[in-house]
Amino acid sequence: MKIAIDAMGGDNAPEQIVKGAILALERFPELSITLTGDEAKINLYATQNSRLSIVHTDEVIKSSDEPVRAVRQKKNASMVLAAKEVKEGRADACISAGNTGALMASGLFVVGRMKGIDRPALAPTLPTLDGKGFLFLDVGANMDAKPEHILQYAIIGSIYAEEVRGIDKPRVGLLNVGTEDEKGNALSKAAFALLSEAPVHFIGNVEARDLLNGAADVVVCDGFAGNLVLKSIEGTALMMFAMLKDALTSSTASKLAAAVLKPKLKDIKNKMDYSEYGGAGLFGLSAPVIKAHGSSDATAVYNAIRQTVNMLEKKAIPIMMQKIKEYEGQNQEG
Amino acid sequence: MKIAIDAMGGDNAPEQIVKGAILALERFPELSITLTGDEAKINLYATQNSRLSIVHTDEVIKSSDEPVRAVRQKKNASMVLAAKEVKEGRADACISAGNTGALMASGLFVVGRMKGIDRPALAPTLPTLDGKGFLFLDVGANMDAKPEHILQYAIIGSIYAEEVRGIDKPRVGLLNVGTEDEKGNALSKAAFALLSEAPVHFIGNVEARDLLNGAADVVVCDGFAGNLVLKSIEGTALMMFAMLKDALTSSTASKLAAAVLKPKLKDIKNKMDYSEYGGAGLFGLSAPVIKAHGSSDATAVYNAIRQTVNMLEKKAIPIMMQKIKEYEGQNQEG
Repeated sequence: MKIAIDAMGGDNAPEQIVKGAILALERFPELSITLTGDEAKINLYATQNSRLSIVHTDEVIKSSDEPVRAVRQKKNASMVLAAKEVKEGRADACISAGNTGALMASGLFVVGRMKGIDRPALAPTLPTLDGKGFLFLDVGANMDAKPEHILQYAIIGSIYAEEVRGIDKPRVGLLNVGTEDEKGNALSKAAFALLSEAPVHFIGNVEARDLLNGAADVVVCDGFAGNLVLKSIEGTALMMFAMLKDALTSSTASKLAAAVLKPKLKDIKNKMDYSEYGGAGLFGLSAPVIKAHGSSDATAVYNAIRQTVNMLEKKAIPIMMQKIKEYEGQNQEG
Repeated sequence: MKIAIDAMGGDNAPEQIVKGAILALERFPELSITLTGDEAKINLYATQNSRLSIVHTDEVIKSSDEPVRAVRQKKNASMVLAAKEVKEGRADACISAGNTGALMASGLFVVGRMKGIDRPALAPTLPTLDGKGFLFLDVGANMDAKPEHILQYAIIGSIYAEEVRGIDKPRVGLLNVGTEDEKGNALSKAAFALLSEAPVHFIGNVEARDLLNGAADVVVCDGFAGNLVLKSIEGTALMMFAMLKDALTSSTASKLAAAVLKPKLKDIKNKMDYSEYGGAGLFGLSAPVIKAHGSSDATAVYNAIRQTVNMLEKKAIPIMMQKIKEYEGQNQEG
C-alpha cells in the first residue's frame, strides 16, 4: 500500500513529518510513502529507502490562506499534489498536518466524494477517562448540516469504530442539550428520528458534559456544534493546565510538591492528548484523507500513518461504501 | 424592594435557601423577601424578621418534572407562586434554584415577556482567567434562535454588563467557529450582519476556546450552541478535577505533596466556580427572574439575591426596555 504525505504541512514541517514517515516505514514493511514538498529540505531529514519517494514542489498552502481559494489557485501546492497522488491512483490515501480547510477542499475537489455521501465530515477521536476514546463527527467540515447528513455520519462513523477501532457494536449517540428523546433544536430532533431507524446501534441523545466520560463510542452532530464543543473542551483543558502550572510554580514549597506530582500530572496531560489516537479523518471521501494535528511531532505523524494503514488494511472505505449503498437500496425499496 | 424566592427549589432546599435569604436581609436593609414553600419546613431555619414573609404551599415542581406541563398543572407550586408574586405586583423580582426549564416557563407564562423581545435568553456569568467573567447568552432558553433573537440578546446583555456589572463599553462577541468575519453557519453569518449594525460595541466573532481567556464581556449565540458549550466547559473542568484528585491521592508521597498544594488547587476550583457571580438571569422578561444553581448553598443563594438587588437598584429592566424601544423606533424610521 502507498500513502502520500504532505511534507510541508504543520508547525514542525518538514522535519517532524519526514521523521514520522521514516518511523512508519520501519514499522510497516508493506508500506510505501510518497512525500510531496521541497526536495532539498525533505532530504535534510530523509534516509535512503527504496519505499520512500519524493514529488518535488516549491508551492505551499499556508495556515493563513483562505482554503478554497488556495486549493484552486495553488495547483502545485504540496498538499494538493498529495491529494493528486490519490486521485491519479499512485497512492491509496493521503495525510497532511497543514491548513484543515484546505485539506477538506483538496479532499472534495481532488480526491472526490464517496458515492452516497452528500457532505464529508471531519472526524477526530477524542480522549475519554477510560482511555478508549470516542469518534466525534462532524467537527467542522459542514457548517449547515441537514438531518440526512448526520445520519450518514452515524453510518460511516459506526463502521470506522467497528472495523478500524475494533469496537464491537459501537454505541452511536447524538450530541444534544439533554438525554431525553424529545430534547434539542429542529435539526437534532429530525436527526434523532432518522437515527432511530438507522442500521447503527443508536443509544439516543448524549450531553456535551458526558462526552469525556465515554457516553458513546461515536458521537454525531452538525459541524458548527461539533467545532464549538471540540474547541470548548480544548480551551478548558488548556486553561486548567495553565492555572495548574501557575499554582505549582508559585513558591518553593509548591515546586517541591510539584516535583513529586509531576509524573501524575504528565499522565493526565497524556490522557487528554488525542494525537495518540491518530489524526482526524475526513470521512465521506473515496479514499482515506487524514488531517494530522498542526503541532504534530514525529510520533503524532507516525500515529496518523498507523491509523491510515489500519484504515487501508481493514478496507474501511469499501465497507463504508457498501453499507451506504445497502442502506440506500433498502430505503428505495421501502 | 421586595424579592420572592422559591424556598423549595434546588438540592439543598429549603435550608440553604432560607439561610441565604437571611444573610441577604442582614446585608440589605432596604430589602424585603417573600419565601414561597412549606411554612413548617421554612420555619426550621428562618429567624424572626419583619422583612421576611412566607407564602405557604405544599406543592413543589421537581427537577424531573416536564417543565411546561409542571408549570401549567401545578398552579400552586412554590416556584409558580414566587413568579405570581411578581406578576401581581407584590414583588419586584423572583429567584429559584429549582428546575431550569420550569423557571423559564414560569417566567414566560406568569411573569411575562419584555415588550420588544421575542424570546427570553438564559444568561449565566462564566468565569475567566482574569477573574472578571463574561455574560453568556443564550445557554438554552431558545433552541431555534433566529438572527434577530441573537441581536436582541446582544442589546440586553450589553446593558446588563454595563449597568449591573459596571463594565465600561462592554465588548460583545458572537460565538463562532473562527474569528474571521465570514466564518460560521447560515445563522451566525446572518447574526453577524445584524450585530455589525447594532447599538453595541460588537468586536466580531469569538472562538469557544478563547471564552475563558476573556475574549469578550458578552458572548451571544443560539441556545442550542450555548448549552453545548456551557456543558462542555463544565464537563471538561469536572473531569480534570476528578483526574487530579485521583492523582493526588494515589500514594503517600502524592498525598503529602497534595497537602502543600491544596490551597492552590482550591484557588483554581474557586476560579472555575461561577456561583460567585450570582445566578443565571432569564433576560427578556418584564422583571428580573434569576436561576440560582441547583446545588446552591447559602452563599450562592446570597450571591443570586445580591445580583437581583443590583439589577433592581440599577434599573436594568427599564433601561433594557428603553434601549430596545429606541432601537425599534430607529429601525422603523430607517
